[in-house]
Amino acid sequence: MAERRGSLPFDVADPVLAAAAWSRLVEPGDAAAGALVRAVGTSEALDWLRSGAATPPGALPHRGWISAAERWRPRLAGLDPRRELDVITRRGGRLLLPGAPGWPTGLDDLGDASPMCLWVIGACDPDVLTARAVALVGARASTAYGDAVTADLAAGLAQRGIGVISGGAFGIDACAHRVALACDGAVLAVMAGGLDRYYPRENVPLLEEVAAVGAVVSEAPPGTSPMRQRFLARNRLIAALAGATVVVEAAWRSGALSTARHAAELLRPVGAVPGPVTSAASAGCHRLLREGAATCVTDVGEVVELVAGLQEPGDPDPLVQPGLLDDLAPDHARLLDAMPVRAAATTDGLVRSSGLGPSATLAALGALELAGRVERDGQGWRRVRA
Amino acid sequence: MAERRGSLPFDVADPVLAAAAWSRLVEPGDAAAGALVRAVGTSEALDWLRSGAATPPGALPHRGWISAAERWRPRLAGLDPRRELDVITRRGGRLLLPGAPGWPTGLDDLGDASPMCLWVIGACDPDVLTARAVALVGARASTAYGDAVTADLAAGLAQRGIGVISGGAFGIDACAHRVALACDGAVLAVMAGGLDRYYPRENVPLLEEVAAVGAVVSEAPPGTSPMRQRFLARNRLIAALAGATVVVEAAWRSGALSTARHAAELLRPVGAVPGPVTSAASAGCHRLLREGAATCVTDVGEVVELVAGLQEPGDPDPLVQPGLLDDLAPDHARLLDAMPVRAAATTDGLVRSSGLGPSATLAALGALELAGRVERDGQGWRRVRA
Repeated sequence: MAERRGSLPFDVADPVLAAAAWSRLVEPGDAAAGALVRAVGTSEALDWLRSGAATPPGALPHRGWISAAERWRPRLAGLDPRRELDVITRRGGRLLLPGAPGWPTGLDDLGDASPMCLWVIGACDPDVLTARAVALVGARASTAYGDAVTADLAAGLAQRGIGVISGGAFGIDACAHRVALACDGAVLAVMAGGLDRYYPRENVPLLEEVAAVGAVVSEAPPGTSPMRQRFLARNRLIAALAGATVVVEAAWRSGALSTARHAAELLRPVGAVPGPVTSAASAGCHRLLREGAATCVTDVGEVVELVAGLQEPGDPDPLVQPGLLDDLAPDHARLLDAMPVRAAATTDGLVRSSGLGPSATLAALGALELAGRVERDGQGWRRVRA
Repeated sequence: MAERRGSLPFDVADPVLAAAAWSRLVEPGDAAAGALVRAVGTSEALDWLRSGAATPPGALPHRGWISAAERWRPRLAGLDPRRELDVITRRGGRLLLPGAPGWPTGLDDLGDASPMCLWVIGACDPDVLTARAVALVGARASTAYGDAVTADLAAGLAQRGIGVISGGAFGIDACAHRVALACDGAVLAVMAGGLDRYYPRENVPLLEEVAAVGAVVSEAPPGTSPMRQRFLARNRLIAALAGATVVVEAAWRSGALSTARHAAELLRPVGAVPGPVTSAASAGCHRLLREGAATCVTDVGEVVELVAGLQEPGDPDPLVQPGLLDDLAPDHARLLDAMPVRAAATTDGLVRSSGLGPSATLAALGALELAGRVERDGQGWRRVRA
């Protein structure tokens, strides 16, 4: 360890304490900090920061290090991650380090912006909950329509054994958590602030239920207050943890759109649920569709397609009603189309009305007779009633 | 002229009679017929068909000609286009030949499948009506939602001097015609059958209004009954006549989807209006969006963008509400975000809570002070109320 300009009251060499310390020192997604700890290790990076040296060990001198250290150093004052670890332990939680058992590997796709660690309260490990999971996110000010669609999707995902990830907020988030819980699905909530206090306060009972069977996670240590920038940074975790992200309802400017953008950057599929064009709560979804940033999804089968990359068998579209002419070859459909609805028609008449010509007409009549769609009637032909 | 196997009761050399005759002989969109008349001329092609010769003048022998002639020849019996021309004249209409004054050149993009001629009843020439026009098409079984959106779009297009094209059917089509008429817009209806009887019967008064100020057109001569295949073929004319096609509502299987597909084949922009995923009347629109076959359009401004290729200025989105932090640089937004809502904060406190470091914090405070967003308060800083 280098010179000892500032001393810290804990063992910097302890990787758990060092990771916890970094999660306090930096704002979420600080890529310079991520690059540094990945290059030299959390303990070594922390030791350098404490030392006051201009350049980290092994790094080339660069004024970027000076401004980065200037950003991180003010929070060294009073830093003691043992306190935060005490808090999370008392809450029945734990700290997960990158690569440790339980760590959800999806986060590694964030590269230098991946979290320093994950603070977790929950019965289940995040890697299990996210092995096959979809993020359902959307407007806090959801409508009855949005809630109904969210409920359908969350229930359908839970029934298919697919986890539901969301942000614990009012509206779509809460609805997704609530219904997935009710259907005994895998549930994961990602918080922007510390896990000492779930946010928003009104959802504390819901989030405690999520923790009781799934997990509530945050990259910020206990004591971190939720701020707008942290919500936006949190959204990248939701996107990275999920196999696909679906925006159910979102206003034109909505945090849910940032989740969708993060997912797209991570090359994760993004779905958007359309709604009435008269509803401001669907404007953000339509914006994503318009910009080609999301696939239009209208039911759970299409959401599953997103995450699976292929359609589940045995899930026919309920809206499809086969048409009378659908299973016919074009010539046959054209001939049947040209036949009177009730009266009989002569072959010559059918040749003229269909415009098919004599031989194609006879071929079509033969095929349709075999298929039981037309029958001979004296010298002519008539339709067989369905 | 070649051998005279069959004689016809009219002057085959008359280009108007010959075109009218071909529009009776073939089903709409018969590309072989189109290629033939374009290669040798309508009169020469008709003379060949009448002659019974195996191969048209100038063509190479090919059994395709035999089966094509077999398809067309049955309708030579009783053929006399003077009758159809009489009918259209008595109805106050006329026959337009390709390339003649009034001919809408968009049809030429159909190549060999372009119509032999256009039967027209109307106060206006089709080329004028379609110079800048959008097709609004959709479900016959439209919902109140679909009708409301159609009315908004048709009115907006009419007010912008953009023509409205549709198919005269129940539902979305009729609504589009009706509202465009009410707003004194340019209106064009394209029929699948002959213009001796407008179809459907219930829309006759509406279609007569369309003809009175715009035009009603068909590629089929008077006396042609509307059949399913002709509706599908008609849809290609709607697509070709319009600068863009918008599907407002459509069931999963809907003729409107065929119009959209024709438009896409013609490299015309296609728009689809989203709706509630719970509405079967929007399932076809969502299908187009999902397949990437249409752009999501939610208001007339976005429809105009389709046809214009660029947004009209001075048409801001009514749903946009600028956020408090939107006009700020990221660092400045982050600092303001970290400031207490009401209390004052020290500079050191802000350095820690923002995670920006001292110099970036001071720079942000200076900029925000200049912008009137924060003010000094003794040794500290506080937000300026909006």
